[in-house]
Amino acid sequence: MGLDFGSTASKGVVLKDGKEIVCTAIITSGTGTSGPERVKEKLLTESNLLESDMEAVVVTGYGRMTYKGAKKQISELSCHAKGVNFLVPDVGTVIDIGGQDIKALLLDKNGNLSNFVMNDKCAAGTGRFLDVMAGVLETEVSMLGEISMMSKSPVNISSTCTVFAESEVISHLSAGVNKEDIIAGIHISVAGRVAALAKRVGIKDKVVMVGGVAKNIGVVKAMEDALGKNIEVPKLAQLTGALGAALFAFEALNK
Amino acid sequence: MGLDFGSTASKGVVLKDGKEIVCTAIITSGTGTSGPERVKEKLLTESNLLESDMEAVVVTGYGRMTYKGAKKQISELSCHAKGVNFLVPDVGTVIDIGGQDIKALLLDKNGNLSNFVMNDKCAAGTGRFLDVMAGVLETEVSMLGEISMMSKSPVNISSTCTVFAESEVISHLSAGVNKEDIIAGIHISVAGRVAALAKRVGIKDKVVMVGGVAKNIGVVKAMEDALGKNIEVPKLAQLTGALGAALFAFEALNK
Ligand code: SF4
Repeated sequence: MGLDFGSTASKGVVLKDGKEIVCTAIITSGTGTSGPERVKEKLLTESNLLESDMEAVVVTGYGRMTYKGAKKQISELSCHAKGVNFLVPDVGTVIDIGGQDIKALLLDKNGNLSNFVMNDKCAAGTGRFLDVMAGVLETEVSMLGEISMMSKSPVNISSTCTVFAESEVISHLSAGVNKEDIIAGIHISVAGRVAALAKRVGIKDKVVMVGGVAKNIGVVKAMEDALGKNIEVPKLAQLTGALGAALFAFEALNK
Repeated sequence: MGLDFGSTASKGVVLKDGKEIVCTAIITSGTGTSGPERVKEKLLTESNLLESDMEAVVVTGYGRMTYKGAKKQISELSCHAKGVNFLVPDVGTVIDIGGQDIKALLLDKNGNLSNFVMNDKCAAGTGRFLDVMAGVLETEVSMLGEISMMSKSPVNISSTCTVFAESEVISHLSAGVNKEDIIAGIHISVAGRVAALAKRVGIKDKVVMVGGVAKNIGVVKAMEDALGKNIEVPKLAQLTGALGAALFAFEALNK
């Protein structure tokens, strides 16, 4: 079992023989809540397995140190690299936009982490940026991607800062600009910020996006424009950390 | 006459013979509003003078290019340096916290600007940061300084980012921490951010604080702690840009 306790969600994967994904679960409450306990219960219930059936548990994410009974705690970066490489074996650059941070990972040919850049000090470009904007727009954050696809002329948002960009969004709204154009502008802003970070680590073929924000098709398209490259989003994009942890658990058993 | 059209306020000074401050005015609406027109009218009404009595008008601030009929437009930095040096002749370092930016100015012995550092990309540490926090605390921003003076054990705010710090403030509030301790923690956060910027330009004797946030005694005290130095706040702290512009107007006449 691999568990990933993030700032805004708890995720888990049950893996069989180091290759078959038996069950996955996501609870949208992160570390410091009941999320970690609930995601484990959900995994066991849905897979019809007992805790004693798990040969090894590895935990990753912000909350990894608070969990008792894990074989190992392994950093998010290593777990993400491992998980993504399992899903997309020839991945070069991984872009991970989480709820409160942005990471860009460079993987070598063997799928090992060779470099990374991370920003967890500034909300700009993170899921939090999108939450703030969704709040101002009175729109569900899960709808932003779809709505932005209708935009014909995205607005320009000149400030990177979440706070200043929020004011720009409010001005656009009160000037009567339609929501799809504002949201498309917001996605371009996120992409600009994230692309700059990703370029610092290096853009190799192929580029994979993971993390909660990878579910937003508008951000993914804007990132493709910003990088001039296709981006692959694995189906289990939010689960790569937990998956990597499960793979490490399997490795630990076989050492 | 010197006029300073900022992002959140319009300020003006009428100066006689380059040394006597005849009249000052502040309107809390900045460029792009009626603020610039209103501050000029207010100055003329209160001083009982006509526009034709003004021998020269110099304009500074974000909105300086939109004003017609000025003898010159001069950058805020030069005007602030000039204005502060008039009020405090032996000033070395000027710290200016505005509504949307932070500036630190180094002045040479003759009161000329010799170096500066500025941040206008990030809301952290600016007046905007305090506005956001005052909003969460449901407190008037003008009351923050006074309330914080009652604090006995300021909270620690670990994030610099406005958005993340706002979440910390919300957690402290819901944990029942009293407002004075939260506000004092907010001021320490602002001071940390601004002190780091000021140190980059250099802390010389004597240090003067200007700009709207200099009215907040809590921030001034926290800055004194952060720098380990006394800080002087001139009475006309919000007017140094306009005053500097008026001094430049006088100089322009005598050249
Ligand atoms: S730029 Fe804005 S979002 Fe980024 S750290 Fe500063 S306040 Fe936060």
